[in-house]
Amino acid sequence: MTLDALLSALGPQVVQPGHAADRSYLTDWALREAVAPLAVLRPSSTREVAQALEICLAHEVPVVPQGGRTGMVGGAAPLADGVVICLDRMDATPEIDVAARTARVQAGVTLSALQRAAQAQGLMFPVDLGARNACQIGGMISTNVRGMRAFRDGAMRENVLGIEAVLPDGLVLNAMNGTFKNNMGYDLKQLFIGAEGTLGVVTGAVLQLRPVSPARVTALLRVRDLTDAQSVLEVLQSRLRGLSICEVMWPDYYHFACGFRGFDPLPVNGCADGLTLLIEAEGVEETPMRVALQAALELLFDKEWITDGAISQTSRQTEEFWALREAHEGIPQAFASVASFNVSLPVEGGDAAISGLIAALGEAFPPLRCLWFGHLGDMKLQLGVVNVSGSPIGAEDVIRIKDIVLSGVQEAGGSLVVEQGGETVDYVPRRIRSEAEHALNRSLRRVFDPKGIMNPGRLF
Amino acid sequence: MTLDALLSALGPQVVQPGHAADRSYLTDWALREAVAPLAVLRPSSTREVAQALEICLAHEVPVVPQGGRTGMVGGAAPLADGVVICLDRMDATPEIDVAARTARVQAGVTLSALQRAAQAQGLMFPVDLGARNACQIGGMISTNVRGMRAFRDGAMRENVLGIEAVLPDGLVLNAMNGTFKNNMGYDLKQLFIGAEGTLGVVTGAVLQLRPVSPARVTALLRVRDLTDAQSVLEVLQSRLRGLSICEVMWPDYYHFACGFRGFDPLPVNGCADGLTLLIEAEGVEETPMRVALQAALELLFDKEWITDGAISQTSRQTEEFWALREAHEGIPQAFASVASFNVSLPVEGGDAAISGLIAALGEAFPPLRCLWFGHLGDMKLQLGVVNVSGSPIGAEDVIRIKDIVLSGVQEAGGSLVVEQGGETVDYVPRRIRSEAEHALNRSLRRVFDPKGIMNPGRLF
Repeated sequence: MTLDALLSALGPQVVQPGHAADRSYLTDWALREAVAPLAVLRPSSTREVAQALEICLAHEVPVVPQGGRTGMVGGAAPLADGVVICLDRMDATPEIDVAARTARVQAGVTLSALQRAAQAQGLMFPVDLGARNACQIGGMISTNVRGMRAFRDGAMRENVLGIEAVLPDGLVLNAMNGTFKNNMGYDLKQLFIGAEGTLGVVTGAVLQLRPVSPARVTALLRVRDLTDAQSVLEVLQSRLRGLSICEVMWPDYYHFACGFRGFDPLPVNGCADGLTLLIEAEGVEETPMRVALQAALELLFDKEWITDGAISQTSRQTEEFWALREAHEGIPQAFASVASFNVSLPVEGGDAAISGLIAALGEAFPPLRCLWFGHLGDMKLQLGVVNVSGSPIGAEDVIRIKDIVLSGVQEAGGSLVVEQGGETVDYVPRRIRSEAEHALNRSLRRVFDPKGIMNPGRLF
Repeated sequence: MTLDALLSALGPQVVQPGHAADRSYLTDWALREAVAPLAVLRPSSTREVAQALEICLAHEVPVVPQGGRTGMVGGAAPLADGVVICLDRMDATPEIDVAARTARVQAGVTLSALQRAAQAQGLMFPVDLGARNACQIGGMISTNVRGMRAFRDGAMRENVLGIEAVLPDGLVLNAMNGTFKNNMGYDLKQLFIGAEGTLGVVTGAVLQLRPVSPARVTALLRVRDLTDAQSVLEVLQSRLRGLSICEVMWPDYYHFACGFRGFDPLPVNGCADGLTLLIEAEGVEETPMRVALQAALELLFDKEWITDGAISQTSRQTEEFWALREAHEGIPQAFASVASFNVSLPVEGGDAAISGLIAALGEAFPPLRCLWFGHLGDMKLQLGVVNVSGSPIGAEDVIRIKDIVLSGVQEAGGSLVVEQGGETVDYVPRRIRSEAEHALNRSLRRVFDPKGIMNPGRLF
């Protein structure tokens, strides 16, 4: 009945029955089991999104908005009794305003399409991540992606100037005013950033661009531990004004990445269990940046804060360094993935928390390996817990694993988003948020979505 | 009755009857007419704030939270039938976490106290404004102050990591988790940023600090118009990586400032009606920055984008340059101020909008002068409309003036916050926001404050 109503309003180009839809819409990068929803909707305009939502609201059918489905925590996985609204047809070429340094984009534009459009005007969008060819702006907003430059240029939140979103009742909320300050009323767009599609469907945005830096230098460094890594970051930040990337990889991740890619630019010498940093600085001229980086690394060797290091000499080498950091895309193929976590840890105590977790999980489940990697600058890390044995891990054990990670992160004063293997998605926020904060969140959600049709069960 | 309840719960140290309170609590920097509220409360702890709010809610008495009262648009002016909660006793020395580069502060800490505490550790808080000795962190959050470095380092919103706030029912909302990403639920603290005290009382915050730059160079430049000013900004941003300040002053403001301070570093030569820019770059070493600035200015002279300019040679001169930009604190004393506006304009068309407004107001009311100044990078400007004649301007004419400004800004695609002279405060947002957005704002406000006691009539 819902399907008929959707079909007659929007036509077969927009509405596909779930069982007939391309399989790619039914799963995500975590390769979870495909779930066929009632329908997959691919609207081509804000108006069609509004029509679709009105019909879903009238039938009280759950709606899951989908971007590029590159998430690893299941926020865009279909629900069997709901419809999926995929934004991939709303991908008009971004409008770049060179004077204002802004881009006006539809939600379905991929990050790499935005990057190309900006670059053609000598500009760049500072939020960058490995999934750039597939992830879409709407999904990046709904998950408040940080990306690798966030410690310098901010996450999505800091780079979104305006949003257009459609509420469940079909109301189009236009907060696209691209000026920088709009203090009249609450900043509603802030609620949509990171809302995981629970308040409505983000259909467009005005984004902040920055000038492209013509030169960059890249290096791979080996450090003993997180404390030394932080010292290295501090030295590099004060010595290289344009430091824009500082990624960290723990040994188990690094070794997986080298195996997956088939090369190792820093073969172990003396610090087998050290961390590997990928750093990059951007600026106007390459030569003085190389000189400054060389000098900084000499200082760091002298202080014994780094034990090994290589400055990239060719663009090929730069690509190789990056390929290691982005090898995480190979994890789901390489292992039976047990669970994957987005973890924020405080700088102080982060090291102990990570070693503690590796030890605790290794003790409880010897066939597990913890692949830790992420952004050093803001300690926003990813943890892939993988099963290196042949035998599967039972659902109860998965819950125990999740509990161990949650407790460890919580004790360290951090926060996390967790995804449980299989089809159940669980963000377990309640153990960290207070009951009062949770109640407020529920009330806010009801303001936008009184019937609870938007991505139910997700976020909280 | 309310007063008795407050007195018996909190004592005379916290509770002063409005008529007996120091006059400074009854007005603000716009020097509006003093209004005595029922009581002025000066709690010394979050717990006392919660107690006070519970009592006010029980008696359904309006509450106006007050920071340093440096606002020019009346958001913290007392209401005769309400109480004022002033945070000035919650001013414990900020706790600086050097490793994490964060400061944990109480809401009543002044910006300059925070700056001193950060500087002692080699760090700085990037949001800076002229009112730094008086304005308080809580007020800066509640108004989402941008300050002068915002085009590079962001406004308050981009530099607040966590917030503690008390809701009208006394509930303490603790979102002080100082880690950088907390995607569990909506980012509630975002609603408090810029809420003007309408959702609750902000009592504390965790703020992002940055390393201090050891060197800076400052210059005053004269440009023909806003288009040239934008070209100058573009050149300086690409030539000086550390450009951190770019303020703009229109002629009427600049001449007032020179008269008020008693000096003029750029006596007019050939461009009497040009704009004056105050620019500053920060970096590691002064000499190369001076060389780069000198070279950039030569290029700008060649291109005729600047008509005059002076690089500060001494710290005394730097102070003088800054004193001009900060001379706006003298406006209320120097003139009968008619109205003051915070205006955001798009880069494109901003010039025409400003000239149009100056002409329209001058035509409608010859004794008016428009003092325009503000941040060039994000076109966040202030407009002081002052009366240079001896004869007063009637209330009806003030409304006409406000309407002229509002229409001009709206036509240009900008936004504004406006304050009407006298005791009435009016943010006139409805003409710019859509009805639907307004309704959502009202619903959100009710989630936090169902009885409507928090700063009623303010914000919207």
